[in-house]
Order: sequence, then C-alpha cells, then structure tokens
Amino acid sequence: MSRDGRNFTSDNVTGVAPAIIEAILAANRGRVPSYGGDPITQRLTALAAAVFETEVTIFPVATGTAANALALATLVPPYGSVIAYDMAHIVTDECGAPEFFSGGAKLLGLPAAHGTIRPEQLGPLFATAAAAGVHAVQPGAISLTQATECGTLYSLTAIAEIAGVAKRHGLRMHMDGARLANAIARLGCSPAEATWKAGIEVLSLGATKNGALAAEAVVFFDRDLARGFAERRKRAGHLFSKQRFVSAQLEAYFTDGLWLANAAHANGLADRLAAGLAALPGVSLTHAVEANEIFAVLPDRMIDGLVADGFGFYRWPAEGGQGIRLVTAFDSDDEDVDAFLATAGRHAEAASPGQGRARKAG
Amino acid sequence: MSRDGRNFTSDNVTGVAPAIIEAILAANRGRVPSYGGDPITQRLTALAAAVFETEVTIFPVATGTAANALALATLVPPYGSVIAYDMAHIVTDECGAPEFFSGGAKLLGLPAAHGTIRPEQLGPLFATAAAAGVHAVQPGAISLTQATECGTLYSLTAIAEIAGVAKRHGLRMHMDGARLANAIARLGCSPAEATWKAGIEVLSLGATKNGALAAEAVVFFDRDLARGFAERRKRAGHLFSKQRFVSAQLEAYFTDGLWLANAAHANGLADRLAAGLAALPGVSLTHAVEANEIFAVLPDRMIDGLVADGFGFYRWPAEGGQGIRLVTAFDSDDEDVDAFLATAGRHAEAASPGQGRARKAG
Amino acid sequence: MSRDGRNFTSDNVTGVAPAIIEAILAANRGRVPSYGGDPITQRLTALAAAVFETEVTIFPVATGTAANALALATLVPPYGSVIAYDMAHIVTDECGAPEFFSGGAKLLGLPAAHGTIRPEQLGPLFATAAAAGVHAVQPGAISLTQATECGTLYSLTAIAEIAGVAKRHGLRMHMDGARLANAIARLGCSPAEATWKAGIEVLSLGATKNGALAAEAVVFFDRDLARGFAERRKRAGHLFSKQRFVSAQLEAYFTDGLWLANAAHANGLADRLAAGLAALPGVSLTHAVEANEIFAVLPDRMIDGLVADGFGFYRWPAEGGQGIRLVTAFDSDDEDVDAFLATAGRHAEAASPGQGRARKAG
Amino acid sequence: MSRDGRNFTSDNVTGVAPAIIEAILAANRGRVPSYGGDPITQRLTALAAAVFETEVTIFPVATGTAANALALATLVPPYGSVIAYDMAHIVTDECGAPEFFSGGAKLLGLPAAHGTIRPEQLGPLFATAAAAGVHAVQPGAISLTQATECGTLYSLTAIAEIAGVAKRHGLRMHMDGARLANAIARLGCSPAEATWKAGIEVLSLGATKNGALAAEAVVFFDRDLARGFAERRKRAGHLFSKQRFVSAQLEAYFTDGLWLANAAHANGLADRLAAGLAALPGVSLTHAVEANEIFAVLPDRMIDGLVADGFGFYRWPAEGGQGIRLVTAFDSDDEDVDAFLATAGRHAEAASPGQGRARKAG
Repeated sequence: MSRDGRNFTSDNVTGVAPAIIEAILAANRGRVPSYGGDPITQRLTALAAAVFETEVTIFPVATGTAANALALATLVPPYGSVIAYDMAHIVTDECGAPEFFSGGAKLLGLPAAHGTIRPEQLGPLFATAAAAGVHAVQPGAISLTQATECGTLYSLTAIAEIAGVAKRHGLRMHMDGARLANAIARLGCSPAEATWKAGIEVLSLGATKNGALAAEAVVFFDRDLARGFAERRKRAGHLFSKQRFVSAQLEAYFTDGLWLANAAHANGLADRLAAGLAALPGVSLTHAVEANEIFAVLPDRMIDGLVADGFGFYRWPAEGGQGIRLVTAFDSDDEDVDAFLATAGRHAEAASPGQGRARKAG
Repeated sequence: MSRDGRNFTSDNVTGVAPAIIEAILAANRGRVPSYGGDPITQRLTALAAAVFETEVTIFPVATGTAANALALATLVPPYGSVIAYDMAHIVTDECGAPEFFSGGAKLLGLPAAHGTIRPEQLGPLFATAAAAGVHAVQPGAISLTQATECGTLYSLTAIAEIAGVAKRHGLRMHMDGARLANAIARLGCSPAEATWKAGIEVLSLGATKNGALAAEAVVFFDRDLARGFAERRKRAGHLFSKQRFVSAQLEAYFTDGLWLANAAHANGLADRLAAGLAALPGVSLTHAVEANEIFAVLPDRMIDGLVADGFGFYRWPAEGGQGIRLVTAFDSDDEDVDAFLATAGRHAEAASPGQGRARKAG
Repeated sequence: MSRDGRNFTSDNVTGVAPAIIEAILAANRGRVPSYGGDPITQRLTALAAAVFETEVTIFPVATGTAANALALATLVPPYGSVIAYDMAHIVTDECGAPEFFSGGAKLLGLPAAHGTIRPEQLGPLFATAAAAGVHAVQPGAISLTQATECGTLYSLTAIAEIAGVAKRHGLRMHMDGARLANAIARLGCSPAEATWKAGIEVLSLGATKNGALAAEAVVFFDRDLARGFAERRKRAGHLFSKQRFVSAQLEAYFTDGLWLANAAHANGLADRLAAGLAALPGVSLTHAVEANEIFAVLPDRMIDGLVADGFGFYRWPAEGGQGIRLVTAFDSDDEDVDAFLATAGRHAEAASPGQGRARKAG
Repeated sequence: MSRDGRNFTSDNVTGVAPAIIEAILAANRGRVPSYGGDPITQRLTALAAAVFETEVTIFPVATGTAANALALATLVPPYGSVIAYDMAHIVTDECGAPEFFSGGAKLLGLPAAHGTIRPEQLGPLFATAAAAGVHAVQPGAISLTQATECGTLYSLTAIAEIAGVAKRHGLRMHMDGARLANAIARLGCSPAEATWKAGIEVLSLGATKNGALAAEAVVFFDRDLARGFAERRKRAGHLFSKQRFVSAQLEAYFTDGLWLANAAHANGLADRLAAGLAALPGVSLTHAVEANEIFAVLPDRMIDGLVADGFGFYRWPAEGGQGIRLVTAFDSDDEDVDAFLATAGRHAEAASPGQGRARKAG
C-alpha cells in the first residue's frame, strides 16, 4: 500500500487503468481523420450496441458534467424542467451546467432519504405544473442517478415504475450513470436490463471514475432523441479533434468486461470497508452500501485520528453526528482498506474504551 | 514515410508527441487531488509565467473551441460583439460556440484578403455602433488569429496598432493562438513579445495541433479579466476531474522549448513544400506561407492525380481555380514532403507537357 | 356593485385607473422622439428621484416578469444564484424568466411559513456554496417580495437585517415590489424607508395591479448597478418605440400620491373582508392580512356556494383544509366586499348550523 | 400642419389612431380574466383567421423586436441560423434579440442593393454549411422584411421563389411584417396572398408604426410551428396580465380595414413626397419608393436648410452623397408633405441656382 492508498476522497483522484493506458498508446499510431472520423470512433457504435444489446447512438465526451448537461439540453426545451433528487450531482455540483446548456431550464429537486426518489413524489409536481399552465416551466425529463449520490441503488423495478409514470406524462427518462458500472456489478443484471429495458432513454455513462483518463459517453437508446446532440457537442467545445483518444478509452473500457470488473472490485472493497467500520464502536452507516461509496457517522476523535494519520476523505453533512464519505476505486486494494480499518479501530479504542469493551462483551 | 504521411489534411490528424505521451504516463502515478488541485496543475502557473515573462492566470482546457468561447464569454457581455476576420475559426468553424458561451453576443466579421484585418477597418464599425446606441450590440473585443486562418502572420506592429485602437475604444484584445507556436517560431520573437507586449490581454493557446493529445490553455495577462472564468469553465464541463492529465501535456509542451521546436519543424517543411509546389507549372500560392499551412491553386489534373495516389488534403475555395490546403505538422518529415512534390511534379508533366517544356525552355 | 365586482381572482383582472387613462390620452398628442427620447420619459427620472428622495435610474417596462428578470440578470452572472422565498413569483410564476434573462442563473428557494424568509436561513446556504467552490453556483443576490406572496409584509427591520447579511457576503438586494404600494400604505413609511434606506439596491416596482394598463419600473438606487440594463431591455424587446405611453402611466401613478391612495383603498377593503370572513364559523385565515390579499381556509360548502353564486377567486393550497385566495383592488368597493361576506355568511349557516350556533353562544 | 408634422424621422414617432384609442377605452370596462383569458383576446383568433382566410394561431405582443425574436427562436434551434438581408432590422437594430431569444443562433446577412435578397444567393450558403457539417451552424430559417428596410417590396413571385428554395432545403419562412400593411396596400393583393399563399409560415405583423399604441402580432399559418411559443412569450415577459388592452388594439386594427387604409394613406403621401423631391435639382432617390419610406441623396445645403427650418429626419448612409430617410405615417397629411417640399425647393434654389437653371433650360 502506497501513501496514496490512504486517499479515499473520491474515485476521481485515481489514475488510469493499465488497459486504458495501453489503448491510448495503441491509438497513438499514424494519422487518422479528426473529429471522430477515425476507425476507433467508428467501431465504438457497434461495440456499444453489443454491450447494450440494442442499436444505440453513442457520443463520447470527456467529462460527466458535459455528458449530463448535453444530454439534458437535448431532452428538454429552455422552458422545461428536469426532475431529480435534490442533492443530485446535476443539481448541486455542476455549477449550473444543465441550466447553461439547456438555455435556462429548471431543475426541480425532490428530497430523498437515501438518494432514490419515488414515483409517488411525481404526481404533485405534475399537478402543480399543469395548473400553472404557461406560468410555470413544464417538466420535460426525469434524471435518475445510478448508483445514487448516497451510494445506494435504484432497483430495476423502481426505475421501471418511475419510467412508467414519466411515459404517461410525456417526460423523457435520463440516467446519470457516472457509477453505472458499480450498479450493474452489484445488481448482477445486464447493461440492457439496467437501462433501456427499465425505461431509460438516454444514459450518461461514466468511465473516468472507474479507470479512464477522461472519458464518458452519452448513449441514446431511442436514436431519434439524439437530434441536435452532435451540434450541441461541437458548439460546447466537447468534440475533440483527436477524438480517437477518447473513443479508445471507451473501447478498452467495454472490452473484456473491464468496466464491470473494475466496478466489482471497488464494490467489494467498499463492502469490506463498510463491514469493518460498522463493527467499530460509535460508528453508524448513514446509507446502505450498495456501490463503492460509504457514508458513515464516526466519533469526532476517530475522524481526527484518521486525518492525523494521513487518511483522506470528505466530511459530509449527516444527521446525528460528524459524517464522512469514503470512496473505493478500481485501484484500491485490501491493504488500503485494512490500514484504514486498523487505524479507525485504534482510534475507536482510544476514544471510547469503555464503549468498545461493552460491545465486545455484548 | 508511412502511408499516413500522405495525409496533409490538417495538423489535427496527428498523434501525440513522444515527450507529451511520456508526461501523461508520468502523471499516471498514484492519487492526487482532482479538479486541478494536483501538483502538476499547481506548477503550471509558474511555468507559464516564466514562459511569458509576466504573471499570468492560466486555465488548461481540452479543445480550442472551448478555449476561444470561454475566453470571449469572459470578455464581452451578451449584448456585446467580437470583431474578427470574417473567415476566422470562431466565426465559421465552432458551430456558434462563442454565441453559446457568451449568451448570444455577436461576431462581427471583417473581410481580409489574407486573413489579417487592419486597424482602418475598425473605425466605421465603431461609428455605426455608436450611432445606433442601444439598438445595436456594442463591440467589446477584437479577436486576432495568429497564425491566421490563411497561414499568414500579423506582424507585431500590426497587432500593436490594432490593440492601440482597441484600447482607445475600450475593447479587449483576444488572440486565437491555435497555431501561436508556429507564429513565434517564424517571427523569432519571444512569447511575451508575441502577445502581451503587443497588447494582447487574453490568449487561447493551442497545443493539440502541435503535439498534444488534447490540451489548450487560456492565458490571462491581465489577471483581473479572469473573473468568472473558473466558474464558466466548470459550468461548461471543461474542468476535468483528472485535470493533471491536461496540465501534464502543457507542462511538457512548454518544457525545453518543445512547442517552438515542433512548430519550427512544421514551418520548415511547409516552406519546403511551398517552394517545391510554386516551382511547378500551373501552380500558384494563394497566400504567403508564413506558418505551417499552404494554400495553393493547382491544375485539376494535378489535384486528381494526387488524390488518386493517396494524398490527403482539403479542397479550399480560391479565386481563379481549384484551391487546396496542405498542412504540415510536428511529425511530418522530409520524405512526406518530397513524395508529395514528386507526385505533384509527375502529374504536372502529365497534365501539361507543353506548358512544362515551355517553362524549362524559358 | 357590478357583476364584475364579484371577481376577487386577482388585482390584475382590473381595468385602468381614471387618472392613468387620462395620462395616456394626454400623451397621445403630436409626434415625439421614440424609444424614450420623449419629454414624459425624460421627466420621469426627476419625479422618481423626488418620490424616493434620492438620485435613481429608472427604467419603465410593461410587465412584472420583465422587470424582475431584467433586474436580476443585471445583478447576477449566469453562474450565480438568487435567493428567494421558495414560492416567490420569480420562482414559480414566471416560466423561468430569471433563468432565461440571466443566461441560466439558479434560483435558490427557501421555505417560509408566511412568505418572509429570515436572515438565519442564509448562513447555511453561504457555507454550502463556499465549500463547493467552483462546483456550485455562488449566491449573487437576494430577492424579497414586498408585500409577500402570502399577503404579509417584511418589517423594515427585517429587510435591513437581511440586507446587512447580504452586504457582508457581497450579495445584491433586489425587491420584487409588484405590490410595494400596498406595503408602503400599510407600513406608513416613506418610499425611501421602504426601499433603499432598508438596504434595497434595485426595485421592481409594480403599477399594473394597482391601476396602470401595463406599466412597471425597475429602479436602481445604486446607479452604477444599472450598467447593461438599457441594452438588456432593448435586446429583450422591452424598450417600446412609443415609450411615452408607458412613462405616462408611471408619471400619473406617482402624481398626487395616486399609487399610495389606490393601495390604501385596496388594503382597507382587504381588512374589512378579512375581518368579516374570520368571524364566520369554520373559516380561518392562513396568513395575517397585511396588504390586499386574503388567504383563508373555508368549509367546502361555503366555497361551493360562493362559486355557485358567481364569486370568483383562486383555490389555493393550504394546510388543514380547502384554501382560497381573495384579492381586493384599487377599484373594489364596499358593496363588493359586503356582497361576498353576506353570501359567505349565508352558506356558513347552511353548511354548519350547529357550529354556527355554538359560536354565537360562545 | 402642426409643428409635429415636420417630423419625418420615423412612423414610430406618431401617436395612436383614433379608432385604436377608442378600442382601448372600450376595453377598459369591468373585470376580465387576465393573461389573455379575456373575450377580446379570445375573439382575435377568429378575426385573424377571417383576415388571412385560413386557420391561424395568433399571439399579440407589444414590440416588433419581441415579435421577431420570439418567432425566430421558435423556428430555429440554438445551433441554427437565420438568413436575412444584411441590413435587416433583426440583424442591425434589435441589439441581438434574435440571438438572445434563440439561445445563440446566428444571423447570416446577405447583401442586397435594395433590400431584397434573391434566391440565387442562397445556394452557396447551403453548400458551405453542408460541407462544414457539425462545425458550422446550419441554416434553419429565412426572414424576409416586407416592406423592406429600403422601402421597397418583394414581389409575391419573388417571395414564392425564395420560399420554394427554403422548402426544398428544409428551412422555415419568416416574414418581418413591421410594415406589411404598407406592402399589401401597395401590392393590391389580399393578406393571404401576401403571406402564406406565397410560402410564409410565420409572420411578425406590425401595428405600432401604423396606428397602434404598442401592438404587434406573431401569426403562425402552420399552427404546428407554434409549439413552445406561448411558453417563450411568458418567459420573456411578453404575456401581459391585462392582455385585453393589446388585443383590443389589434382588433381595431383589423376592423373595417383600418390597417390597410392607414397604410394606403401613408403610401400615398410617400409617393407625393418622393415625386416632389425627385423633381428638385441635385436630388436623387436611392431606392424605389414602394411603401412609406423615402431614401434620397440631397445636396448638403438642402439638408442643412431643412434641419434649420425644423424638419426632422435621419441621415442615412448612401453611396454618392449625403443620404436621408423620410417616413410618412397614418397621421401625416398633405400639408406636412407640401411644407417639406416647399422648404426643400427653396433651399434647392438657394444652393444651386446655376444647376437649377441648367436643369430648367435642359
């Protein structure tokens, strides 16, 4: 374990997976048409179709914010709105990118205890908007994050149920799949089942957090919906001249199941970390750990001790105490996790010996 | 010479320069803070300051369109306009990116025989705008492309003269330096002289065409002007989570004069290619060759022959005949150029034996 | 009382006050410079300065949505946000106008039991935004509605307190004064005390609901903040060629205290209506009645009866029963109010005789 | 003739036609539903259908800039462009409103000697855009101004020819009809022939210049194209709460042929003025006078003399001398015109006696 392994801040502090670096190096041979006219980009559509078991239109881009904002701008008019969890990445962490790309559409945030909005929350929104008529922006799309910003998952049934409501009301279904691989690996379903078979029409698929250098993709399962996307991407400066290097990352990502293997690895370590933490006195998990993120409340002294010992993580608002977030990644290892747990355990004892003994006795 | 060397379409069909690939690989070690909190990005400001001999604020981005559009949106309000050559990249090749990023500012295109607008063209624009008052958008910035879209250069004096007019009228000076390295290498001036010393306040600096994978930079010489840029970049999806990989490219680009060496190499080959072409019967150069682009009118049969023999280039509108554009790059070599010239020469003879002989006899 | 007097739907179902119609007719003489170059518009600045006891820049526009959205777009950048009551008109009733005009700024809605946000709600917003840095839009302005959307008022102290917080954090203070006249009339303060003396920097002043045909004004107390407003107004199609007719309405509105007299009249009738309603069995007022709007919960049968008898009003979501909103206006009269109360009383008895008797006995 | 009659600056310096003022007063009775729910607005659709002899969707707005920009934003996506005469009002006089409302679409200006673009100018634009693919905005609509900004007219055949090209290339046809009444009155055709029968799909119809206080209308002949317009209008602050007062103006405008009578009157005076001017020595008309605008080159002394004697008009750029523009209106009269001509004649003699004599002798 290197010193770096103590950094559980995010899965975006990682480097690039070996197979993806290899793909970049392999792409760096000779001259090819620019702006996506290259063979790798050309191949990518067929590969994505095979992965998702259906015809798709796929657009590689370099950041998740670009993927989300371009996708949403394609789905809703400037006078429309996007319904999402009120702490969704698109709502709180993209500096207004969806508003910018869409020309000022609104994000309607819904509260959710563990990151998953529920179909019964939608009805009142529709009723209010319908009553307001032209005075209010009208809902145009629903965006679900899978895995959620709380490290939890939507069940396929839950997605399908929301998609059903969306369809009845003429809304489009978008998925922010920044960590979709983690969700699929956990659910044990196929990529098709995780997305279009559950009613998702447009997917922002993440790769950067899961081993790529800078690669995401917008995947349209309903290809008619892609109208205007290519123009919007170019206009936003997100069509690369040396596009092959983005496409090559995605090709490697999909090849031999790398994406799912990387995600399963990270998930496994998150389970191990969560289990170890939960066993410590004074620690409670804020949300179920269903992907590669752990949200937990720890005793103050434990947090301070971990920081002092060089571990990295974000403080995270939590009810009932000092919350933190820990993220495992494709390149995390058992040693990293064990070191964290050992240190946390040591500070747990230091902090609350009596409580610790009581638990052991219990 | 590989088959690829026959591709003179653009300098963006190239791969990545070895030193830049090395820098990417070197950056791929361990975990570092994301979104530009990494050591490489931190170092870049000092390096840029050294290169430009002044304090700067530098923002790495991945595409030239992003660099230009973000820079211009920072300089002009939505109700302003940007003056540029009417065939400038920002006017014709960015699918309206400046309009999008600025919230609908206008581009005012000025005609220019060889890509360089002249100070005396500005007065009438200012007069018209002033007379129109609130009814017309007011000029807010001038954008000069160096080297120009015609492969020519602004002299430092010409830039300073335009900048003087701009200053007197309260306009900001932007440079689209997608091929600035080629200009500096040709002018034999310092980066400082090429930019802020001539009155440029904000620079879009290209690296992708000249050896990077995907790296450009927006450089603010007047750091107060950078206000809001960081937010606009994030909001546009152009702040990378693994930002170190963009910064690493720029670091290598500036190190040991790589950028200028690459550019000088491409310029030299352009000279050689231009000289060879100009000597062929029926060929005329459309513009002076002052960077790495050659615009020429060729006999139809010569063009057809070159295409048939596998050479790649763009047809380009030209007065008085069939125009083409040829671009040399950091990875072009003598063999590529000689092969092109030999083939062109062969088709020249085939196309016009009498003309050819006449020339020899002349 | 005409049949029309039964319409308590809103103060915007009214016609035009006689003095304002006279002003329009008077303005319709001869030819004058267009686009605000006319004498009436020229006079308006001095008149507004007198009314507000300070130098101002005033821009007449024709709708409240235009006034609010243009003002806010001038105050916050596209990557900023505006803090407001989460049921504020700008948030729920302008179809995304502030987002459109600002280029995609966000509205951050705060809950408020009776329409008035409180200073202590601001701190957490600032803390979250500061922690998020470039990832979140940064608060740029606070917009208070006076009178509020609940028909209540901010005290001058409450405004000043919020303005103090805003100032410390570098935010601008905007007031949506669609019903400011009603507030001033009730508070018994001067227009200056109601606005800039309490810390308001930019005011959207309503006149349409209070007697104008179509006239509002954006008033800048800090005239430097007006930069760009004239251009934004023109660009939005809100500079009228025959601008004199908008200005004439405002001139009449300010003259001889018409605006405050109209508002006081409407307030008085609202008091009378509220008092009468509150005395009926089964009726409860949702909010204090401090301007010209009454929000109340009524027995279902009473509501049905009023509707059947030709009275007009909006149903309004309310906790604990069937809510309605009633609005009085400059042209309402005692007869209208008494007719409403008599009818409501009749249905009260019909609906709940026992309850009615019980009350009388109590 | 009043002093005001000397003001030939524009037809927007006028007041309101008596029948339209009457209509406003008549509308000012009682309470009616706001935001267009009133009976007058409801009647307007049927009236417009009768006027244009086809089903239409009509949206009243208050300014021509709003009408044009809202219409164009409905027709082209942000990544599209609008083709127009390069001195069209939408290009030069609306402070970028079309760009603002459309989210940054481009205006592609075509030169035209007398304000009328020609179908053969379109082909090269389409070819260039098609070749550029995603790198350039794609033409989405053509906007023709009728009568043109040069006071000339498109023949119905010319419109149909351009509309034919537009249809073949999938572009929408917009007409800026700020002075459409003048065109119809001159052409002697029906409103239907002037618009949809010639291929116009969406019309911005002016009334303000021709007798209204502030009223224009956007008329969709293809009603499917109106999708989103109502939302865009509200969002732009152009839906009036007391909408009846805008609708009432349009109702009066269409009633008993007021619009065409007013326009015919102005046209007739323009003819008389043009004929008188053309007969003076040293005067030449810049464009044919086909509506109510006269563009002429006058001797400097004549211009100075007219100004000194209190006549108002704009200086206008013209080849070959000092250009001016004169506009007649619905409320101009013979006396105004005769006074202008007499004064001009007096200054013609003063300015160039020799020249004058020579002409007479010739």
